[in-house]
Amino acid sequence: MQIPQPYLLFLGDVTDPLAAKTARGILQWRPEICTGQLRLTPETVSLGLADLSLADAYAKGARTLVLGTANAGGFIPQTWLPTLEQALDIGFNLASGMHQRLGDNRLLAQRASANSCELFDVRHFDGELEVGNGKARAGKRLLTVGTDCSVGKMYTSLALEKEMNQQGLDAQFCATGQTGIFISGKGIAIDAVVADFISGATEAISPDFDDHDWDIIEGQGSLLNPAFAGVSMGLLHGAQPDAMVLCHEVGRKHIRHLPHMPMPTLDTVMAANLTAARLTNPRATFVGICLNTSALNENEARTYCKQLASQYQLPVTDPVRFGVSAIAEQLHQL
Amino acid sequence: MQIPQPYLLFLGDVTDPLAAKTARGILQWRPEICTGQLRLTPETVSLGLADLSLADAYAKGARTLVLGTANAGGFIPQTWLPTLEQALDIGFNLASGMHQRLGDNRLLAQRASANSCELFDVRHFDGELEVGNGKARAGKRLLTVGTDCSVGKMYTSLALEKEMNQQGLDAQFCATGQTGIFISGKGIAIDAVVADFISGATEAISPDFDDHDWDIIEGQGSLLNPAFAGVSMGLLHGAQPDAMVLCHEVGRKHIRHLPHMPMPTLDTVMAANLTAARLTNPRATFVGICLNTSALNENEARTYCKQLASQYQLPVTDPVRFGVSAIAEQLHQL
Repeated sequence: MQIPQPYLLFLGDVTDPLAAKTARGILQWRPEICTGQLRLTPETVSLGLADLSLADAYAKGARTLVLGTANAGGFIPQTWLPTLEQALDIGFNLASGMHQRLGDNRLLAQRASANSCELFDVRHFDGELEVGNGKARAGKRLLTVGTDCSVGKMYTSLALEKEMNQQGLDAQFCATGQTGIFISGKGIAIDAVVADFISGATEAISPDFDDHDWDIIEGQGSLLNPAFAGVSMGLLHGAQPDAMVLCHEVGRKHIRHLPHMPMPTLDTVMAANLTAARLTNPRATFVGICLNTSALNENEARTYCKQLASQYQLPVTDPVRFGVSAIAEQLHQL
Repeated sequence: MQIPQPYLLFLGDVTDPLAAKTARGILQWRPEICTGQLRLTPETVSLGLADLSLADAYAKGARTLVLGTANAGGFIPQTWLPTLEQALDIGFNLASGMHQRLGDNRLLAQRASANSCELFDVRHFDGELEVGNGKARAGKRLLTVGTDCSVGKMYTSLALEKEMNQQGLDAQFCATGQTGIFISGKGIAIDAVVADFISGATEAISPDFDDHDWDIIEGQGSLLNPAFAGVSMGLLHGAQPDAMVLCHEVGRKHIRHLPHMPMPTLDTVMAANLTAARLTNPRATFVGICLNTSALNENEARTYCKQLASQYQLPVTDPVRFGVSAIAEQLHQL
């Protein structure tokens, strides 16, 4: 799967800025693939991109209309359908991160087929997969792991890819979640595959390679989150990382959505990941810690990073505030 | 889901005794729900049950025709279809463990609908699930875990259920794989659910209870098998076991199908399972070890069990050769 780029970002009639998080992520990390935005009403959130009609965007080269918003229930609103049909008639492919599949709408399926356009449902995966085998593969791999969900694993992965490339290391981001898939144009939503194929899907995302230096694999969930640890475990075994970066949100009180589950310590999470990772890569090691320090002011954040750096003898940073250069520097020697 | 019982076991035209393993398992553990067998040719393997016509079996009370054989590719052979259609016309439900869904055959789907019969595809799960939450549930749970796949987890679970009930403990087997689902008439094939729902599905299989003493949950895979550890991890968190029994095949040289993966030690597997289990049940503990000792003669097997029992201070047995009474006895005090 490769979603044709560049994109026209479809924002529908969404007025909650949080609901446009996916579209904003694409623009943040890949501005060069965002031709413009399409909004159905003047009240719709704006990303600050040029408002383009379908025809204008297509003329400027855009090839996929990306439904980059979340909406209640994950269903495609009726009010969006005329625009989506028109896009297919012009020649756009459609890509959606919604729960409802584009192809389950008969009209969209017919129009796509008639116009030889593709429908990409990045939350789903319908391809053939094999079960994992744990065989050592060529190439070096870094995996971001977390103390929980939503602690910055995708952000850290993309920041590392960018920084490593700036430092002269040829790094490629490997997406395992929907926003990441839009950003890179390919990948597999690991939490959406059939359970038997978690590690096999991860092996497929980052196969043998010798044409670049590092694959940076986006982690999911946490080994200590009782809802999603199975996904994290299979992802870890399939990724067979040489290097891991731990991601954590400072001040989080309990596992997300589970007030009865206290946050595990960093030591617990690192030990669990190291032990499990070494099943498929005995050289697996931590090369840094990335914190979301938004609960602290900048001075406090700097002090806390220094304290943890001394405690763990690893570079510790907030990737948003302080960047990830010190972590990337570790990777020249590995 | 509850598959109506008793069953007529359909053996098709299968001549390889190994291919009838599922049907044999149903008969071994639940002879009282097996009304008879249906074979299409004289050469077809026999389970030693009465050969019954569809009409005779229905008259004797059978309500589901169970396709209890494995065949290459997992597809329903054309030669079986007339019998399956006739079964639906008589009023049988159909239950299959094959990869191909019964309902994907349009003729079978139509006949089932016309006759108000149900089609059960136990390898698949289409129901609604919630993600796991790790909340403590009422009731006591035992989970079988393994050093690998196919080391006797289902056998051990069923042997324990039977022995515990004989010892006056009210125990209920909870199926997580296809043969187990046929045997109990319900359950979820855990490796077939979407990855996000592994622990949630396990929580659904064994919800809060206070009407019996123990749920005996069938384990799958192994935390140290790089193909399937994600499934095992989610199952372990969802099961929140009070008690675990380790299953192992003596003499296995490497992880099944993966000659490059050496077998882990029993200590490694027990430590990994205890650490992970305690996330959702801090009281989790091992209560015994079940060995498949078929590589040893009976004297050697007895000596080896004693040696491990002394080493781990736990009852150690081969459930096929020596039964599981000593393990069941542990469970009166827990």
